[in-house]
Amino acid sequence: MEGITKLPVGEQVEQFLLIKQATKGVTTVGKPFMSLILQDKSGDIEAKLWDTNEEHENMYKAETIVRVGGEIHDYRGKNQLRIKQIRVARPEEGIQVSDLVPSSAIPKEQLMEELTQFFFEIKNPNISRITRHLIKKHQPSLLVHPAATKNHHDYVSGLLDHVVSMLRLGKAIAELYPSLNTDLLYAGIILHDIGKVVELTGPIATTYTIEGNLLGHITIMVNEIGQAATELNIEGEEVMLLQHLVLSHHGKEEWGSPKKPMIQEAEILHYIDNIDAKMNMLKRALDKTKPGEFTERLFPLDNRSFYKPTI
Amino acid sequence: MEGITKLPVGEQVEQFLLIKQATKGVTTVGKPFMSLILQDKSGDIEAKLWDTNEEHENMYKAETIVRVGGEIHDYRGKNQLRIKQIRVARPEEGIQVSDLVPSSAIPKEQLMEELTQFFFEIKNPNISRITRHLIKKHQPSLLVHPAATKNHHDYVSGLLDHVVSMLRLGKAIAELYPSLNTDLLYAGIILHDIGKVVELTGPIATTYTIEGNLLGHITIMVNEIGQAATELNIEGEEVMLLQHLVLSHHGKEEWGSPKKPMIQEAEILHYIDNIDAKMNMLKRALDKTKPGEFTERLFPLDNRSFYKPTI
Amino acid sequence: MEGITKLPVGEQVEQFLLIKQATKGVTTVGKPFMSLILQDKSGDIEAKLWDTNEEHENMYKAETIVRVGGEIHDYRGKNQLRIKQIRVARPEEGIQVSDLVPSSAIPKEQLMEELTQFFFEIKNPNISRITRHLIKKHQPSLLVHPAATKNHHDYVSGLLDHVVSMLRLGKAIAELYPSLNTDLLYAGIILHDIGKVVELTGPIATTYTIEGNLLGHITIMVNEIGQAATELNIEGEEVMLLQHLVLSHHGKEEWGSPKKPMIQEAEILHYIDNIDAKMNMLKRALDKTKPGEFTERLFPLDNRSFYKPTI
Amino acid sequence: MEGITKLPVGEQVEQFLLIKQATKGVTTVGKPFMSLILQDKSGDIEAKLWDTNEEHENMYKAETIVRVGGEIHDYRGKNQLRIKQIRVARPEEGIQVSDLVPSSAIPKEQLMEELTQFFFEIKNPNISRITRHLIKKHQPSLLVHPAATKNHHDYVSGLLDHVVSMLRLGKAIAELYPSLNTDLLYAGIILHDIGKVVELTGPIATTYTIEGNLLGHITIMVNEIGQAATELNIEGEEVMLLQHLVLSHHGKEEWGSPKKPMIQEAEILHYIDNIDAKMNMLKRALDKTKPGEFTERLFPLDNRSFYKPTI
Amino acid sequence: MEGITKLPVGEQVEQFLLIKQATKGVTTVGKPFMSLILQDKSGDIEAKLWDTNEEHENMYKAETIVRVGGEIHDYRGKNQLRIKQIRVARPEEGIQVSDLVPSSAIPKEQLMEELTQFFFEIKNPNISRITRHLIKKHQPSLLVHPAATKNHHDYVSGLLDHVVSMLRLGKAIAELYPSLNTDLLYAGIILHDIGKVVELTGPIATTYTIEGNLLGHITIMVNEIGQAATELNIEGEEVMLLQHLVLSHHGKEEWGSPKKPMIQEAEILHYIDNIDAKMNMLKRALDKTKPGEFTERLFPLDNRSFYKPTI
Amino acid sequence: MEGITKLPVGEQVEQFLLIKQATKGVTTVGKPFMSLILQDKSGDIEAKLWDTNEEHENMYKAETIVRVGGEIHDYRGKNQLRIKQIRVARPEEGIQVSDLVPSSAIPKEQLMEELTQFFFEIKNPNISRITRHLIKKHQPSLLVHPAATKNHHDYVSGLLDHVVSMLRLGKAIAELYPSLNTDLLYAGIILHDIGKVVELTGPIATTYTIEGNLLGHITIMVNEIGQAATELNIEGEEVMLLQHLVLSHHGKEEWGSPKKPMIQEAEILHYIDNIDAKMNMLKRALDKTKPGEFTERLFPLDNRSFYKPTI
Repeated sequence: MEGITKLPVGEQVEQFLLIKQATKGVTTVGKPFMSLILQDKSGDIEAKLWDTNEEHENMYKAETIVRVGGEIHDYRGKNQLRIKQIRVARPEEGIQVSDLVPSSAIPKEQLMEELTQFFFEIKNPNISRITRHLIKKHQPSLLVHPAATKNHHDYVSGLLDHVVSMLRLGKAIAELYPSLNTDLLYAGIILHDIGKVVELTGPIATTYTIEGNLLGHITIMVNEIGQAATELNIEGEEVMLLQHLVLSHHGKEEWGSPKKPMIQEAEILHYIDNIDAKMNMLKRALDKTKPGEFTERLFPLDNRSFYKPTI
Repeated sequence: MEGITKLPVGEQVEQFLLIKQATKGVTTVGKPFMSLILQDKSGDIEAKLWDTNEEHENMYKAETIVRVGGEIHDYRGKNQLRIKQIRVARPEEGIQVSDLVPSSAIPKEQLMEELTQFFFEIKNPNISRITRHLIKKHQPSLLVHPAATKNHHDYVSGLLDHVVSMLRLGKAIAELYPSLNTDLLYAGIILHDIGKVVELTGPIATTYTIEGNLLGHITIMVNEIGQAATELNIEGEEVMLLQHLVLSHHGKEEWGSPKKPMIQEAEILHYIDNIDAKMNMLKRALDKTKPGEFTERLFPLDNRSFYKPTI
Repeated sequence: MEGITKLPVGEQVEQFLLIKQATKGVTTVGKPFMSLILQDKSGDIEAKLWDTNEEHENMYKAETIVRVGGEIHDYRGKNQLRIKQIRVARPEEGIQVSDLVPSSAIPKEQLMEELTQFFFEIKNPNISRITRHLIKKHQPSLLVHPAATKNHHDYVSGLLDHVVSMLRLGKAIAELYPSLNTDLLYAGIILHDIGKVVELTGPIATTYTIEGNLLGHITIMVNEIGQAATELNIEGEEVMLLQHLVLSHHGKEEWGSPKKPMIQEAEILHYIDNIDAKMNMLKRALDKTKPGEFTERLFPLDNRSFYKPTI
Repeated sequence: MEGITKLPVGEQVEQFLLIKQATKGVTTVGKPFMSLILQDKSGDIEAKLWDTNEEHENMYKAETIVRVGGEIHDYRGKNQLRIKQIRVARPEEGIQVSDLVPSSAIPKEQLMEELTQFFFEIKNPNISRITRHLIKKHQPSLLVHPAATKNHHDYVSGLLDHVVSMLRLGKAIAELYPSLNTDLLYAGIILHDIGKVVELTGPIATTYTIEGNLLGHITIMVNEIGQAATELNIEGEEVMLLQHLVLSHHGKEEWGSPKKPMIQEAEILHYIDNIDAKMNMLKRALDKTKPGEFTERLFPLDNRSFYKPTI
Repeated sequence: MEGITKLPVGEQVEQFLLIKQATKGVTTVGKPFMSLILQDKSGDIEAKLWDTNEEHENMYKAETIVRVGGEIHDYRGKNQLRIKQIRVARPEEGIQVSDLVPSSAIPKEQLMEELTQFFFEIKNPNISRITRHLIKKHQPSLLVHPAATKNHHDYVSGLLDHVVSMLRLGKAIAELYPSLNTDLLYAGIILHDIGKVVELTGPIATTYTIEGNLLGHITIMVNEIGQAATELNIEGEEVMLLQHLVLSHHGKEEWGSPKKPMIQEAEILHYIDNIDAKMNMLKRALDKTKPGEFTERLFPLDNRSFYKPTI
Repeated sequence: MEGITKLPVGEQVEQFLLIKQATKGVTTVGKPFMSLILQDKSGDIEAKLWDTNEEHENMYKAETIVRVGGEIHDYRGKNQLRIKQIRVARPEEGIQVSDLVPSSAIPKEQLMEELTQFFFEIKNPNISRITRHLIKKHQPSLLVHPAATKNHHDYVSGLLDHVVSMLRLGKAIAELYPSLNTDLLYAGIILHDIGKVVELTGPIATTYTIEGNLLGHITIMVNEIGQAATELNIEGEEVMLLQHLVLSHHGKEEWGSPKKPMIQEAEILHYIDNIDAKMNMLKRALDKTKPGEFTERLFPLDNRSFYKPTI
């Protein structure tokens, strides 16, 4: 099966899909309808369900798996799914939510294994113990959490994928600039975004938690580092340095870091985070673009369209 | 005694002073000298010591009490002290550092008593316990710490003075806008700046600590609230709300708050902090200004000069 | 009667309403309709009138009182009124526009009485005479004008409500910071927004006048203070100070004040104005929000959503 | 006589000069001296007077004419005057302040005559009467006032020079874009900066008045237009339009205009003002620069250095 | 014939029109339609074609001439064309695209003649040869290219119209400020925007080319000046100065000029460009506005609405 | 020999030094002196020469090699050299300027060899030919030019050092993100700053050329790419892409790039440039800092001080 986002206009559809989002609407002449975002592993597509009633609204909620028959058509330059039949999937059909959500290309266990290897490179015992403690504590969530609600690494295991990709880049940079302290750099990369397992609700239909809104993943993680140090009876500059790395990784106050980077590893951490996030967005956008054409506008990249060369 | 900052040009000086800052210099023709900032309770004044040597440099260091004879003269529109005699004070003369530093007009015990009264107004037990716990923990420092290195409430007990003044204003505002939750508002006022007892070195020759530079008083206090909750076995929304109040009290990301205020008490806390700091700066500047004239430029007030009306 | 904005979805409606705004439209298939904003004292609601013609357009204009039968339904998460019958109210039914517009909770006469009490606190005769003169001149409008077209105090007598609320806050602040000149502060509060009686059209279907657009309420009032001084033969610094208070009350050039505050009373006036406007917006938004949820985004508060705590 | 600013290093000086500014100083070894800014028609030069006492300070004040003997020398790349003899000029020597201050190249009477010609081009009687009334009222000051304390047209009759130069440019532009209303444009040009006769102290040793600081020339003139209309019993849109032209001529709120230009003549007025001010600054800076070199940095032109081509 | 944009609501239409833009759409109930932008010399109007199919989509493409019968109606405050009949124009009907696109009021040959006259005013042979060479090279495009895709001079020969209008203004300014080098100023005006003949696709259905997007008209022209100098064997400061004039004409880095103006002619060129573009936009907007009313919001003029006075 | 910047206070000096900068001065009491910046391979130090005359000024000019005897002393916290004897070096002493200027740690021939290896990795013949052509053309300058006048890579061969360091980083990144086109990335890195050989005067006493000021290294290089393509008869998208890479490498308009990066290789080039420049600055600053202390403020890093951890 090709995946719902890969089908051309006119193609017939008959498959299981997950409702990612469901919104009620009324047409300009007052008729009720539902607007659904349906997804499988390839991504998501919009669909309309006409002449709906309260029963439909209760049945077709977010996170429900449905069996849909229909056809792909073009609506204002974007593909849509015209629904002909729809029903809720039956338990005996054995479809899991995890079968229908995009996830990292590399299996999460393999990513976790690669992350674990970096623990052996952290020599400082205080840094090592705090980092291991926090990864162990959040491991179940970390295995599946996305790194964001949208834009980059916004899929199952996206957070872990992002962290491992950054570790690879961090290692390459540290080899070229040996004045960097790899204990701090690797621990900073591993911990910088783990607060997102509290800030975001989870891998499906991801939104912000109240704590995520009021405190944010940076503050959440800075607190957890402090708590971990207390629990492990660790004192010393390492605690403050790890907190500073997490605290400053957005690079500037207006981007949510209450302090700018003030150690060189924090400065480089900010760059590594940026490069990895941008390459993830660019790859995705360019994969959908033909040579000689421009991508759609990418909001987090200053709303730029990127050109795909023909050479 | 009038105080060193109140004496007119030409006046003879013969008194004890505290060295607040001592810097070595060399004249353009190569002769060594020392530039001293000397203070008593009224404030500080600059003085030069000519033809100094290493012995002088060792003797006249910051935080040393000296006996000085000399005369006030005018140097580029500001008063300076021309030193004629200087010697280190003798222990038997019984002068304390605390006799020679500016401090709040109201005794610190009375300020602390006034702050304590507000505990009785906090009804929510979780909020009350966390707040009392942290005030008790930091009480010794809180009694003497300044609120800043310069600009506003930058004197002994300045932090306590600022907090109590804000509590009075908070109470007045809460009476006019009864939808405000006074438990949150008073606890927010009490806790918002306590992190400064870690961020700043202390009441004499105040500078930033390393932790102050790398984490800042906001993050320090948010961490302490979390630790206090753990120690006191408190869970619930109150912890997050207190952390949010402290976190957001600078009002904007570019001013060092990783989140903008998102509860109404946090929004008002930001305003109360601002009004009290500005009134403190304006009072000080206008006290030195004659009616019909402008104050010196006040950097933290957008570098404005304020006019003192003649009416 | 509960008020049109308080009715739940599904409720039948049969009441008088005021047309606040009427706009013609065409559906995507070319059929004409009208979009009405209907209001009573509780606020306003949107309604559609289908298959309309020119006769309807002439009949159902802004500021017309109508008798409407219909039902509340939900359109994209907001309540709408489905109109079943509609007709223009008859004179003999005795409904006044004033019966159908939101207004301040406290009667306008009582607000004016409270404002008047503050005249007795202004000791300086020049300030007192100019302020009384201008209030007297604009009293009829001041009794009913809103303070804005939307956002805060945008109801009948909203301007007066705002001014009186600010006076109460000003009095509380002046008691805590006695260096403030209450003559200047109270006169500044009373006069700062009176220019809005010229800038805005009036309490119903409020829009900007041409003079409001080209000059603005600040300039309009600064001119009126000058004219009042001429008429009353008053000279002296008071005239300039009152003009400066009005001129600078937006706080910054980019917010429309050609000069920043340069006397302390002007600085505090700006804060009082801000606090009162924000508390008014926050109260209204939080009243519509359940504990544990966020308000809608509030544009003039940096587009923030505020959280309503559960404690 | 060449003028003090045109003399090369090493040249002997023996002439009358006006003290523009006098400041007391103390050397790093404590000896008093005075720093003088001395001027003649060609501009100004700095000079030091060593080993001064109180008598010197009373004698050599700003706006005093002195007879100076000395020599031009180079101090950090700028010419200075080394004073050998100095004395206050005697009344019988008959030197006037006006003999020693820079002024417009064209006589002020001729400039006023040229301005007056533009009255004949203003056809609308209301605009014409208000404009004539205000020019007549301020004519004595307008004949001699500078347009600024520094940067551009900062000399005797500089304001008039600036206005007349703008009128010429306005006429040229209006001929190319005939949709412009010349009545509004010419009156806007004539009135836009007249408030400076109140904002600035006068042509010698120019500083800001208190009213200039607290209200600014824009507000001062907007008020005067209103007062003039009252005195002349003029009502109608013209008053508001003239006020808007003056109000908006700085172009943006952050540059001190409470409203941006909202009629096309106001937009063009802002451009004409800018071009004329910049050409005046550029001419002056380039006149002092050799081909193939850069001017000094020009602060009001974004701190740029301009290149003087060799072609 | 009046022109399609001048007809009042209700008027019958029967004329040839050019399809400027054609977009497919689907109604909220799923029916396909086409949205057309149709134009004649007077400007453009929107029209809907209902119940369309693939055949229509192939027939009614951008740049096709059609014969349309229908009626003007009002859609949300803007005129629309209700299509009753439509067919593609037949070759034998002899209608040209050029008959149906807006163009400069003055014939392009006359504009080019006026531009050519300015060559005689350029005395410096290097400047003259480079300028003539580039105008000759691009003359065919220059005769018809617009200056922009929208906002100002966005019609056939709009670029030439803009350049000639700027030359007239440049000449007027140079007469008033004789320190300006007219060789540089006129050559700068002539060349500044010629890169648009490469940046934009052409006069019909104008869009950006890939080179336009990736390099921009400024860089394109700076390169061409360099290439021209090489071809003509010209060396010397003139080449750099012409490149600088083109390079800096947007005035600031954030507006796309990698260097700010650093010669006075470049500074003035930036102003002339701005004034001419703004007058073009203002004229167009005010022509559509009644006295006493405001224009629509003009996005490139800070989104302002301009008032059209009644005097 | 240790190098002049490594000597402690009190140390005797007797060595050859290069005058980097020489400025005349006058003391506050009018005595002439010279302020010299003297350098050897380790960096530079300030020195004063008292009681100088015209002969000294002619003898001790920038780029002169001198033999100096003296002593290191401390002036306001920075080391200075107190000169006891000074004379110009004699030709027979055989000291070269190149013996006394800082340069890259790796020999320039080795750096050039490493750069050359990357040519073999560029497969596209058009990109390869243009890049080789330009490197060959500028090779003599490229071998010795600095990358800046100060801040980073501001030493002999600094430009080449920077380019090679970036190539290493580019290679590491391209291996992790294989969607990157290495032909474009490597060519972009090699060419991006070569325009500096025209923008800056050379490796000794580096300043900006006129062309550097008026056009800048970005525009200079974009032009050269175009000229190279013409000379080599190369057409095709590669020319435009190389020009875009150079054009956009500052990342934003306000940083001097007339276009933001619009291909992914340009985006990454900007990051690589930034990381390498910042690591160079940070290394230099941290090398001079003790663990547990902060570096001096680094202006191009937002004026931050960086902390050097003790772990």
